This record gives sequence, C-alpha cells and structure tokens, in this order.
Amino acid sequence: MSAGAIIEAFSPAGHGAHDDVSRLSLNTATTKSWTLAEAVDGAVRAGLGAIGLWRDRVAEAGLAEAAARVADAGLRVSSLCRGGFLTAADESGRAAALADNRAAVVEAATLGTSELIMVVGGLPAASAPGGPALPDGDRDLVAARGRVADRIADLVPFAQEHGVRLVLEPLHPMFAADRAVISTLGQALDLAEPFPAQAVGVVVDTYHVWWDPELESQIARAGSDERIASYQVCDWNLPLAADPLLSRGYMGDGYVDFGAIGRWVTAAGYTGDVEVEIFNQSIWDTQGDEVLAIVKERYLRHVLPGLVAHG
Amino acid sequence: MSAGAIIEAFSPAGHGAHDDVSRLSLNTATTKSWTLAEAVDGAVRAGLGAIGLWRDRVAEAGLAEAAARVADAGLRVSSLCRGGFLTAADESGRAAALADNRAAVVEAATLGTSELIMVVGGLPAASAPGGPALPDGDRDLVAARGRVADRIADLVPFAQEHGVRLVLEPLHPMFAADRAVISTLGQALDLAEPFPAQAVGVVVDTYHVWWDPELESQIARAGSDERIASYQVCDWNLPLAADPLLSRGYMGDGYVDFGAIGRWVTAAGYTGDVEVEIFNQSIWDTQGDEVLAIVKERYLRHVLPGLVAHG
Repeated sequence: MSAGAIIEAFSPAGHGAHDDVSRLSLNTATTKSWTLAEAVDGAVRAGLGAIGLWRDRVAEAGLAEAAARVADAGLRVSSLCRGGFLTAADESGRAAALADNRAAVVEAATLGTSELIMVVGGLPAASAPGGPALPDGDRDLVAARGRVADRIADLVPFAQEHGVRLVLEPLHPMFAADRAVISTLGQALDLAEPFPAQAVGVVVDTYHVWWDPELESQIARAGSDERIASYQVCDWNLPLAADPLLSRGYMGDGYVDFGAIGRWVTAAGYTGDVEVEIFNQSIWDTQGDEVLAIVKERYLRHVLPGLVAHG
Repeated sequence: MSAGAIIEAFSPAGHGAHDDVSRLSLNTATTKSWTLAEAVDGAVRAGLGAIGLWRDRVAEAGLAEAAARVADAGLRVSSLCRGGFLTAADESGRAAALADNRAAVVEAATLGTSELIMVVGGLPAASAPGGPALPDGDRDLVAARGRVADRIADLVPFAQEHGVRLVLEPLHPMFAADRAVISTLGQALDLAEPFPAQAVGVVVDTYHVWWDPELESQIARAGSDERIASYQVCDWNLPLAADPLLSRGYMGDGYVDFGAIGRWVTAAGYTGDVEVEIFNQSIWDTQGDEVLAIVKERYLRHVLPGLVAHG
C-alpha cells in the first residue's frame, strides 16, 4: 500500500491527516524579517499549531509581552532557540556561559516551553579564524567535548528547578570546529545519559543528521530513552551556500529522505511538533506569508506522509 | 616528558626521528600541475620514501611507463587513487562501475601497490543538481549504502586474485549526497567486516574524520582488525572554500589535532606511509618544490611528533 493510500485509509471521510498542519511549527528563523508579533500572526493565519522562538526576537518584543502574545494567540511554543556555547576553557568564559544559559532557562519557562535548544559551541580556537597559528592545545576536540559535559552537569539542577529541559542539538560535522562539538545524535545521547530524560533531551534536525549511518538506531534509542524533544525539518541543498549555515532549503529541494526519517521518528514514539527552521537568504528575501504557504505545501507533501505512515 | 623530549630520547645522536621523512608520501593530487614524472622526481629530491598516485596521472604517463619510473626511483607506491562510485541503481551503471574498478585493480597491481583507495559515490540523484524535483526513491540513502556493500562483495574475489585490497574511504558527511555515502570510519569498518583484512581495508584521512566523536575507538578497532591501509593528512580550513573539496589545507593551518590522531593511529599499530593529499587552489598555484618544502616542514612539526610519541 502506498503512503498516500495509507493516509486515505486512516481518513475515511476524505479530510484530516493529509492536510493536517496541527503539528507544524514555524521557527521564527525561517521568516527572519518578521518581528515576533508578525510571526505569531502569520502562524495563526496559516493555521499552525505552534511556533519555535529565537531569543533575539523574544528580546526585541520583551519577554513578558512575547509570552502574552503567543499565549493569547493559542499557539504552543515548541522550543526556544537557543542556549549553549559551553566550550570556553577559561574561568570568565565559563561563568559568562553559565549566566547566559540560566537566563535562557528562565526565558523558556516564562514563554511556556519546556524545551531549550542548546548549540554547544565549537573549539575556542575557531573564534579567531585567520589569526596567528594556534597552539595545539586549542585544537583539543576531546577536551572541548569534556567541557560541554561538565557545563551540562552544572546547568541541569537550575534547569530542573524551572521545569526546563536542556535539548542538545547535534550539528552537522562541518560545524564541529566553529559552532558545535556535538556532531552526532549518538554523541548527544551519550552526553544526555547521566541525566533524567526530563532534564536533558535531544533534537533531531534533518539538516544536521540526515547523513548519519546510525540515524535509524540512534533515533530509536532517543525514543526509548524518551529524549526526543524536537523534530526540526529542512532540506540539505547543494551546492553548499557560501555560508554553509544558509544552505538549508525547503523540504523537497535537496537530498533528505523525509519519508524514512519521519517513519523512524514516528516509530520512536515522537508525537510532538515539527518545526520548520530554514536559514536561507533567498527565503529570507521572500514575503513571510508566501514562505509559510510553501512550507505548508512541502510539509504536507514530503514530511507528513512519513509521520502518519505508522498510523 | 614533552613530545620533543621523547623524540630526543629516541635519537641520542641528535638526528633521526625528528627530521625523518621516510614515511612521508606525496599524493600526486597535492602537486596537481606536475606530471607523474615530475612528481616522482620531486619526491626523490625531497627525500621522501613514497608516492601516492592518482589514476589520471598514471594514464597520462602510460601504465607500464609509470610503474617503471616509480620503481626505478626507488619509491614505494603508498596507494592508488581511486576506484569506487558504486551506487548506481541501474544495470548499466552497475556494469560500468564494476568494469572500471576491475581496471583500477589491475593498475594497482601493476604499479606495485596493494592499496586501492575507494571513494564509493553519492546518491545517484545528486548527479543531477538543479534538475527537476526528484522522486523520493532517489533519496534512499539506506538503499544506496546497501548497493555499495553488494558491489564490494562483487569486486572482492577479483581484487584478491590480484593481491589488491579495496580500501574504503569514509568521506566527510558534507559529501554524503554527492560523493560518498560512507561517512564514518565505523561505517567503513562495518562494510569491511564480512571480508578478510587483506581484501578490504580502510583509510584514515584527517580531513574527513577529524570531527568524529568515535574516532579514537574506531581507529583502535581498525588497527586490531588490521585494516588501516593508509593514513592521509591535511588540515580542515575555515571558512570553507566555495568548493568544499578544495578546503583542505597544509597541516597546521586549520583545526585538526594531528598530535591526538597520530597517537591513536600509532597506538593502533599503523607503521605505514603517511600520505599528504591536499586539494587547494592556492597550493595548486604554487610551484611544486615549494609545496613539498612546506609539506615536509609541517609534517615534521605537526604530524611526526604524534607518530613517534609512543616510541
């Protein structure tokens, strides 16, 4: 039976699952030109059930105002992006990171989301590209990863007090030097393992993990550990953009197998929101409502079939 | 004791290990403007012990002539690059790939190397970037990886008859769509496992694997399985070049921890050649002898200390 036929079988009245965007969440980074208020209004107009917030948009609006506006709109906050940047080796860098992450925890709690996405930071050395030759110690990836584990342990009690989960995001390995030393879902789960599932979770972002030979088994592990805090979707476009961070595309424009990954996430028991988070200059240059219309169409065509195929 | 002090302790006469380039191999892709004959002469002038050959340079020189010239120069052939591109889903693509790889096996044997590097190919769909929307089946990475396993099984008997090892190269995950669906050393070892160590090996190329959280353990596994066929070194430069294939740099210019990886490779029992393979337009635009002088200096400074620290 085709995926389409399965959907029909579960929607005998001819409507429902196949046009259901209730799990679709607009990450505010996708419609970068919109203020928080505009993004909330746009998500409501599009019939979405949730919104994923970035801290910069929340700060612009004011935390209390942002929280009130999202709540009044009846949207869930699927996640807050982002805490992290935990790899500093010096005491002042450590202290600054802990302070910033505690602030992010409070913001998440205030906004009504339990999920704080953590981009953990790269090698400290990578903060000075083009600078003088670096001592080998600054290239010690194993040590940087160890510091991430230590900082998570530092932050967990505070996060738990506020009912917020630290959600570790594995980033694509091409960002290991300069953005996140967590490079695979398996590694994120290893880091999460010492802590309760309600304290440390993981995000599955297709752009970052689609290539992983262990993806199916690690998603299953994440599900059985009850740590999947967010499923984020966008495509892997080629050629890479000059800034690879901006090489994300609409689902269907690249090489990600959303059917397979959606089935794995669903088989792992994930029933939460599906955030569309696309950094892409061309999409940022497009009017927000048009972006959302395309996002919805691509979600229904490429993403939802995988999510409901297990029906 | 510092690495330098260790080297001195093992070189009481004040020469030897710390300026020893006998394991250093020039991969011909590093000095792209040189013909095979020029690369052989350059490697000899620089006092290197080995050379890694690309098939295009061998074809230009003629196979028999290339084999004779390298042998006459007294250089080892550390590897032949490359076979692979095994992911075709259609019968004619499969047949063409098998024929080309059998030719590469014969070339390796004729050149006197047992190590044929295999870059296994990406999603077939990725061969048509910018083309029309692709059917989801063309994004089936799991199936593409399965075809690689099948083609390796097809090729092993022929390679064994010729005394040649198929050396699987994990490529950086940013090349998973368009160049190689083998993305980690662990995955390469899983693919190798059904076959004898003399039939299927792996290469550790720092550019492709430096980020891997499992790198130390998978290098140890590769060593205990006796599958490390080549250690290739170059650095991970940022920002990425417009063509990420060309973003490789001289050792010391980027973020790779050659000390750590060298210690892991040495602890795994690898005592073979160390190939410097750098694709980089700026280096290609530099005169070959100058490139080799820099390569030697960087090898002695950044790579060799890790290789001898276990002394």
